[in-house]
Amino acid sequence: MDGAYTGITGTNNNNMETVVHKVVAPPRQSTVDKLKGKMKETFFPDDPFRSFKGQPAARKWLLAAKYLFPILDWAPQYSLSLFKSDLVAGLTIASLAIPQGISYAKLASLPPIIGLYSSFVPPLVYAVLGSSRDLAVGPVSIASLIMGAMLREAVNPSTDPFLFLQLAFTATFFAGMVQASLGILRLGFLIDFMSKATLVGFMAGAAIIVSLQQLKGLLGISHFTTEMGIVPVMSSVFHTTDEWSWQTVLMGICFLLFLLLTRHLSIRRPKLFWVSAGAPLASVIISTLIIFLFKAQKHNISVIGQLKCGLNRPSWDKLLFAGTYLGITMKTGLITGIISLTEGVAVGRTFASIKDYQVDGNKEMMAIGLMNIVGSCTSCYVTTGSFSRSAVNHNAGCKTALSNVVMAMTVMVTLLFLMPLFAYTPNVVLAAIIIVAVIGLIDIQAAYKIYKMDKMDFLVCICAFLGVIFISVQEGLAIAVGISIFRILLQITRPKMVILGNIRGTDIYRNLHHYKEAQRIPGFLILSVEAPINFANTNYLNERIKRWIEEEQGNENKVANLQYVVLDLSTVTTIDTSGIALFMDLKKMIEKRDLELVFVNPVGEVMEKLQRANKLHNFFGTDSLFLTINEAVISLSSFVKLSP
Amino acid sequence: MDGAYTGITGTNNNNMETVVHKVVAPPRQSTVDKLKGKMKETFFPDDPFRSFKGQPAARKWLLAAKYLFPILDWAPQYSLSLFKSDLVAGLTIASLAIPQGISYAKLASLPPIIGLYSSFVPPLVYAVLGSSRDLAVGPVSIASLIMGAMLREAVNPSTDPFLFLQLAFTATFFAGMVQASLGILRLGFLIDFMSKATLVGFMAGAAIIVSLQQLKGLLGISHFTTEMGIVPVMSSVFHTTDEWSWQTVLMGICFLLFLLLTRHLSIRRPKLFWVSAGAPLASVIISTLIIFLFKAQKHNISVIGQLKCGLNRPSWDKLLFAGTYLGITMKTGLITGIISLTEGVAVGRTFASIKDYQVDGNKEMMAIGLMNIVGSCTSCYVTTGSFSRSAVNHNAGCKTALSNVVMAMTVMVTLLFLMPLFAYTPNVVLAAIIIVAVIGLIDIQAAYKIYKMDKMDFLVCICAFLGVIFISVQEGLAIAVGISIFRILLQITRPKMVILGNIRGTDIYRNLHHYKEAQRIPGFLILSVEAPINFANTNYLNERIKRWIEEEQGNENKVANLQYVVLDLSTVTTIDTSGIALFMDLKKMIEKRDLELVFVNPVGEVMEKLQRANKLHNFFGTDSLFLTINEAVISLSSFVKLSP
Repeated sequence: MDGAYTGITGTNNNNMETVVHKVVAPPRQSTVDKLKGKMKETFFPDDPFRSFKGQPAARKWLLAAKYLFPILDWAPQYSLSLFKSDLVAGLTIASLAIPQGISYAKLASLPPIIGLYSSFVPPLVYAVLGSSRDLAVGPVSIASLIMGAMLREAVNPSTDPFLFLQLAFTATFFAGMVQASLGILRLGFLIDFMSKATLVGFMAGAAIIVSLQQLKGLLGISHFTTEMGIVPVMSSVFHTTDEWSWQTVLMGICFLLFLLLTRHLSIRRPKLFWVSAGAPLASVIISTLIIFLFKAQKHNISVIGQLKCGLNRPSWDKLLFAGTYLGITMKTGLITGIISLTEGVAVGRTFASIKDYQVDGNKEMMAIGLMNIVGSCTSCYVTTGSFSRSAVNHNAGCKTALSNVVMAMTVMVTLLFLMPLFAYTPNVVLAAIIIVAVIGLIDIQAAYKIYKMDKMDFLVCICAFLGVIFISVQEGLAIAVGISIFRILLQITRPKMVILGNIRGTDIYRNLHHYKEAQRIPGFLILSVEAPINFANTNYLNERIKRWIEEEQGNENKVANLQYVVLDLSTVTTIDTSGIALFMDLKKMIEKRDLELVFVNPVGEVMEKLQRANKLHNFFGTDSLFLTINEAVISLSSFVKLSP
Repeated sequence: MDGAYTGITGTNNNNMETVVHKVVAPPRQSTVDKLKGKMKETFFPDDPFRSFKGQPAARKWLLAAKYLFPILDWAPQYSLSLFKSDLVAGLTIASLAIPQGISYAKLASLPPIIGLYSSFVPPLVYAVLGSSRDLAVGPVSIASLIMGAMLREAVNPSTDPFLFLQLAFTATFFAGMVQASLGILRLGFLIDFMSKATLVGFMAGAAIIVSLQQLKGLLGISHFTTEMGIVPVMSSVFHTTDEWSWQTVLMGICFLLFLLLTRHLSIRRPKLFWVSAGAPLASVIISTLIIFLFKAQKHNISVIGQLKCGLNRPSWDKLLFAGTYLGITMKTGLITGIISLTEGVAVGRTFASIKDYQVDGNKEMMAIGLMNIVGSCTSCYVTTGSFSRSAVNHNAGCKTALSNVVMAMTVMVTLLFLMPLFAYTPNVVLAAIIIVAVIGLIDIQAAYKIYKMDKMDFLVCICAFLGVIFISVQEGLAIAVGISIFRILLQITRPKMVILGNIRGTDIYRNLHHYKEAQRIPGFLILSVEAPINFANTNYLNERIKRWIEEEQGNENKVANLQYVVLDLSTVTTIDTSGIALFMDLKKMIEKRDLELVFVNPVGEVMEKLQRANKLHNFFGTDSLFLTINEAVISLSSFVKLSP
């Protein structure tokens, strides 16, 4: 049995004399330096100031200005040809932004004009501060939905519209504050806790909820539930069948089909993106004309009604920072702020990676946050980068953030002169526009890929989806984020541990259960702990290792005569005081069983702490530390008493 | 420059033809099998049923009975010599348990006799169900403190003592339910989230709070604050100087000194443990005699007063499961249950590891939980294994849980016949006993070791300490647990990544910044990610790797001519769908820069998911997968174009 393993020393026999390399401690570093390093990696992983290094003071100021106002970066080199591209893109997204703005405002139970206001000021602010070239800024469906749902819990928008508006502006202000502070405090990584799987499930659920809500407009119902769950909405639909208006239903179905067809066409042929981009505006115009010509508003089809001409009015005097509603506006601001930030940053990153330029997440957060703070003072509600409009912007060939300015100008013209035209626009068309817009959020392909790739991730996705449609939008999200974090904690609490074996004729050691050609070495139990060791898993590791040794010693059939327990620490990246205590316990336990404990390749921090523990307790000798498993095995195998 | 690296192939030149080992996928396993394996590792890491395997049915029943009632394990072999040891140990802990029982009940604002009741029934239950041989069961200081503090927020024990008692029994019932369910559901790992550092800080803070509360008894103050913070207690002390009684203070100081001296003696000479173990009872007897002889109760020294003889009365009819107090009793039960469980399990594990026997954490939880449920129905409040009394039990030479039975019998005799003797026991002695008992909880040495070992752990410890003494016991604990968990999450969000280099003349690759002899290989950037890759860190890893490549390509002084980016995945134990998406992004980004991405040693799950991703997206060839870094470098270095 023992003869089979002579191969292990073969690979290194030409430098046998240098076979044992010493494990050394990492270079000394003071606690302050270490803390500094850690802080830097935590808060400045992208090292935003690296271009500042070694530059003269004047240049540093210029760089700082460019850092804060990315517009300074591209404006000086701006040219007519760039403008042509931006003009086309800007006009295209404006044609999408105007009907969507009105629709999303209605989704948030706000007056339609607020949606247009929100498509005017925020894009201008973003053009100055934002670093993405493709982001098209304005109201988005999910954030509108959540804001409406949360504020409706406190105030009824139909009986108290002014108070509701005040709360919306205040919540937008808080959303902006949350976003800007996350950016300034460089805590952007907090939004990373929403995984792809969570988002896919959440978005799909929200899209379904939004679509169901549109049944109100699509069926022409006037008494509709304000709740969001699938159950109350469906029961509300079927309890009000007497309110359904066939004219509205007919018109709704026609425009829904038209919009779906154009969407389908654009997906099939990406070059025809302008068809689906222009379709909502075309629907609005056509439907308005129909109503106007046939005087259909008198035939049970509800219309938007008169809207006043004029630009955004200041609204800072409408912000409510005191009183009973402070709690709900802060909560709404926090949740809509984080949700809209997640969307905005993800969209920015997606297009930056397509065009291969850099978007600084934390700076984007500051830009989006400031945009919302300014917005809340100029009659806008929460805005961010919209995925669908940014995609159109990108396809239409935008070059810089100026396309947002073009869009804002178009919206301005609309606000100043074209508002009377919306008087005859039917609500049913807005409902159709919203449904077609949110259908894109249901990403079945992505869900299928997640299912194929990782069943647990899929479970998270499904939980988010079901939570959103059956419980509520906020709680569904909370459940999914909670499960994701619990999974991470579980990975830490129950880390993987594997038994390694030698691959014959090499000095490679791999998991026995994974590589069939790996073989046990007589006298050795080689364990690899594949996680940081800390208070949350020391008890588990202790019990698990003890069990392995007992099985090893108890079982007659195994490679007998166990003498050395080798702990490969290559994958243990950090360790805390509980972990060190675990090592001391293990050492005692192993020595009581007449075995010896050997450590292999403790990395940086772990080596350091082992040394410190040794100073305090003197618990291991340098002869029980090796740089590689192979060196440990070669050095120690001469001491192994072979089984009789 | 290139000549320097010919050494890398040297080590393997005798088996050059077999140098490249294939990375294979782990053996196939269905999702159900995987889930089963994971469940087993999560909930049954100690594999409690392994001794059941392959046994006949009758033996299985016997094993099951022994598993549920560990008393069946040792009772049949019980002998007279074992009984002698247990008798001595039992009498010793009884002499400690009687004064401590009375004192701790006062700490929880309960009648003193409840403390004695709680030292009678629970030890009997534990003797039947518990698997620890050293645990001495009864009321403990921290749980008493927390229960008193939390319930006082709802009910005033001096104006409404009966209701307060009812709430205490109900909270004890809930504590038992929580403990038993954690054990039955095998969720014992939840208490692992209290790290050593948290406990050291928390215990020290709680000890100080408890000691300060004793100033009431020590100074003879009758109007004292019911709050727990250091600030209200100190102000209460100095606002009632007119109530101080010099007789009480004198007596208190004398007994405090006596107890501290005996404690000091026992610490110095562990063989004299019985001195400090007997001192509290001696103090009680001496002080009672003094009061009785000098009729000192008339001189401003408050005494316990008349206590009724008799055993525990049933109290299940006193449990309150409805009404306004349900919330507070459940909360109190949850917190005291978890705290006392942590103490009990930790004590059990400590002594089990000293005597080298096995304590099953989850079974212990069931035993402690049942003990508290039974206790709540027999006029007991929350009990667990006490550290100080278990240490005395161990030192006194206890052999089995029968020492608990001996203790319970002694308490029974006291309850039946000796109660009138306590009528003259002064409260000041009880205060002194509590102070000396909790001083042992302040472990400055442990705190110093934590400071030496790990500064961040020390910070957690300090936060727990300051939180407890300045905010509140519960919130201090919550803060410390929160920080500990946040640290773990941060480790995941900002995983370590290192650049590896070759140690000359070997095939070993190690961190360049740790091992000075490690050298870069021209044309290669070898990165090792030292954490599971998941949604919480993919953004960070993406930015960080991009930055490294940019630095590499931008810097003229570095080993130039970068061609291969090698990702060593040995330490990536799990990956989710976001991680796979990261790899695809990285591949695109790296190929745009005319580089090639190579993976090394993806382990089990990671390899599996890479393969699945490949089926869906076909994003890497098998020629970009290697088993070791060395094999990758050897295979690819022939393609490296050397710098001009």
